[in-house]
Amino acid sequence: METPLHHVVVVGAGFGGLHAVQKLKGAPVRITIVDRRNHHLFQPLLYQVATTSLATSEIAWPVRHLMARRKDVTTLLASVDGIDPAGKTVSFEDGGSVAYDTLILATGARHAYFGHDEWEPFAPGLKTLEDATTIRRRVLIAFERAEREADPQKRAALLTFVIIGAGPTGVELAGTIAELAHENLVEDFRAIDTRKSRVVLIEAGPRILPGFTEDLSAYAEKALERLGVEVRTGAPVTECSAEGVTFGGQVLPARTILWGAGVQASPAAQWLGAPADGVGRLLVEPDLTVPGHKDIFAVGDTVSIAGPDGAPVPGIAPAAKQEGVYVASVIKARLAGKPAPAPFHYRHVGSLATIGKRAAIADFGWIKVKGSFAWWLWGIIHIYFLIGLRNRLGVALSWLWIYLLGHRSARLITQGRQWAGEEKT
Amino acid sequence: METPLHHVVVVGAGFGGLHAVQKLKGAPVRITIVDRRNHHLFQPLLYQVATTSLATSEIAWPVRHLMARRKDVTTLLASVDGIDPAGKTVSFEDGGSVAYDTLILATGARHAYFGHDEWEPFAPGLKTLEDATTIRRRVLIAFERAEREADPQKRAALLTFVIIGAGPTGVELAGTIAELAHENLVEDFRAIDTRKSRVVLIEAGPRILPGFTEDLSAYAEKALERLGVEVRTGAPVTECSAEGVTFGGQVLPARTILWGAGVQASPAAQWLGAPADGVGRLLVEPDLTVPGHKDIFAVGDTVSIAGPDGAPVPGIAPAAKQEGVYVASVIKARLAGKPAPAPFHYRHVGSLATIGKRAAIADFGWIKVKGSFAWWLWGIIHIYFLIGLRNRLGVALSWLWIYLLGHRSARLITQGRQWAGEEKT
Repeated sequence: METPLHHVVVVGAGFGGLHAVQKLKGAPVRITIVDRRNHHLFQPLLYQVATTSLATSEIAWPVRHLMARRKDVTTLLASVDGIDPAGKTVSFEDGGSVAYDTLILATGARHAYFGHDEWEPFAPGLKTLEDATTIRRRVLIAFERAEREADPQKRAALLTFVIIGAGPTGVELAGTIAELAHENLVEDFRAIDTRKSRVVLIEAGPRILPGFTEDLSAYAEKALERLGVEVRTGAPVTECSAEGVTFGGQVLPARTILWGAGVQASPAAQWLGAPADGVGRLLVEPDLTVPGHKDIFAVGDTVSIAGPDGAPVPGIAPAAKQEGVYVASVIKARLAGKPAPAPFHYRHVGSLATIGKRAAIADFGWIKVKGSFAWWLWGIIHIYFLIGLRNRLGVALSWLWIYLLGHRSARLITQGRQWAGEEKT
Repeated sequence: METPLHHVVVVGAGFGGLHAVQKLKGAPVRITIVDRRNHHLFQPLLYQVATTSLATSEIAWPVRHLMARRKDVTTLLASVDGIDPAGKTVSFEDGGSVAYDTLILATGARHAYFGHDEWEPFAPGLKTLEDATTIRRRVLIAFERAEREADPQKRAALLTFVIIGAGPTGVELAGTIAELAHENLVEDFRAIDTRKSRVVLIEAGPRILPGFTEDLSAYAEKALERLGVEVRTGAPVTECSAEGVTFGGQVLPARTILWGAGVQASPAAQWLGAPADGVGRLLVEPDLTVPGHKDIFAVGDTVSIAGPDGAPVPGIAPAAKQEGVYVASVIKARLAGKPAPAPFHYRHVGSLATIGKRAAIADFGWIKVKGSFAWWLWGIIHIYFLIGLRNRLGVALSWLWIYLLGHRSARLITQGRQWAGEEKT
């Protein structure tokens, strides 16, 4: 009688989960990927969907199609709602379940409001394709309503776009919305001058892009200001409402507020009753297993672990990929009866952020670059990391049109219950 | 004192409305386009969004961007809810309004259920981008749920796709879903064999594509059957539910039902209290004015008018375009004090329908073509009529990938309240 193959279940088809699956190729295992979405999402470019530059399908791929040739991999569309570590079973919201021999949790994170969940309706965040089409709809509707608004105060509030949080996502949103307002949309409106729109980037900390060195962060702030973005640092937000945002004691009337400030890990730690940090990220062992569960690994944004310099490993795609690859190597060593690999060691490849269509900053440790060279580098790297020639060509085409003509191809208001209904207040 | 320019208000930015605006270029008028959507939609390719072949943004363009250089044109995003012909005003749902000197109604049509509106939740139709993403989501979720379903009967119902109505939309949906099931998706699933899916096209009339000659319609039926579509003609549907569809006395268990059977004109006739045909289309004068309202024209799918052969002018894009162009010529003649042009004369350019990715039928009157030559012709004509080089390249790229590799690039399940929630029953 043959022994059944060791069963690896991977929850979450983000960068971490898929890289683990990729590196398990050829290992004596069968693999099941579980995700509540049918697609892998290229999150680094999600803000471009939110700002009308790219179509949803240009940055998302059906997971089971990516795995079509991997006959050792089964893909399930299901939403996990619990784990039974004793019974070695993952349970689904709809009643189903799957048993595992080894479990990899790669369940990611959502945006969070620091205890102010009541702000969410007024200040949507950006983590899913639906978030992106929601933000796109709100931004475009604000211009549409301004075009029809006679009251100058209401019109000004409609043409004020506030982005809270100046990490890479906040900076990229602010830069692109400023370009939309101050360049791309100018010719299209008759009653309003979209160049008079205000784009305000609010950051509680002392400077934008705190993950970068001070000089790069200062350069990025100047580049944003050249695009017409008003940067407000050291200004924690104390209130978000349908009327606007309150920060540093002042009230700014604004009908569009976007949230790029905080993240909250998936409930993986709760499923296991395992120790977590303040935002719910699992505290894992040096081999990325969950304490007390040698057969459960965790990777990516749902994990809190220190890097070689003692600082936390950042919640970025390269970190998740490295963790996925590492976990696969541990599993392969175990199955081969080999000694465990050395503890996970994070190698920081570099940090990149882009500010509009002509400037970016990049810090590779051994070299720092900024300006238009960094911007080209950013574009080439992101196209390189897209999956498949089809999407590389598609994104390149979209970018070419924006670069040459300023035409953003996905300026669609969709999925609102009604154009003027849902977003009215 | 200067006389203010004659104000033409166009309600609806479909083919008819936009062609009227285009032909009014240079006339001594100012124009306002009102649409409740921010985009012009290329409806002939909408079924390709519904069947994962194209992205939403490849077939939709922001109306105001199309009019960016036409400084005589103002675009308003608003939902019309009434017309006051005495006061010459169009009113909006949100309380606003706009006054006109001449009004062009180009408000189109929706799908209709012949008095069975209760079928809509079970059998969505296809007229908007949201309709297309809804159909796409339902079709893809059916395969996903089948992959996880152990009960063979339930699995069979999940893998049965019923399309009601065998006009061009129904035929195109059936052909593409059959290709998805029997070719494109086969490698991606593990538990199910998608080739065992049933695609059933139900038509109440005696043959499919009744707008074509009998031999072309017979060819199309054979082509569909080669793709694995089961064609059931002469079979009126008497019931649609979450369990399936009843037709010709038999019950077919099916979890995915799509509606391509009937249309209902927009409420333009109700707004005016004007005479309409059985599906609400305005009965217009030979110059396309609404009876009793010389300053109100109507064009496109919201109009019922006889063609030169006495048969009704079909609800297709070329007819709407011709009507739009004609109305512009009447308005220009009036403003120039010239005699009215001859009554509207519909020239039928031809009929085209495609069946999957290798066959099509075309009837240009003087010549009929079918098979792969007609398919290439169909593709070239549709790419030609897309707006702008950007979208032509994008759609050509998408089609190339499907043609060469069978990869459809927009296989995304999005916008469901939850993947397993909304569509569950």
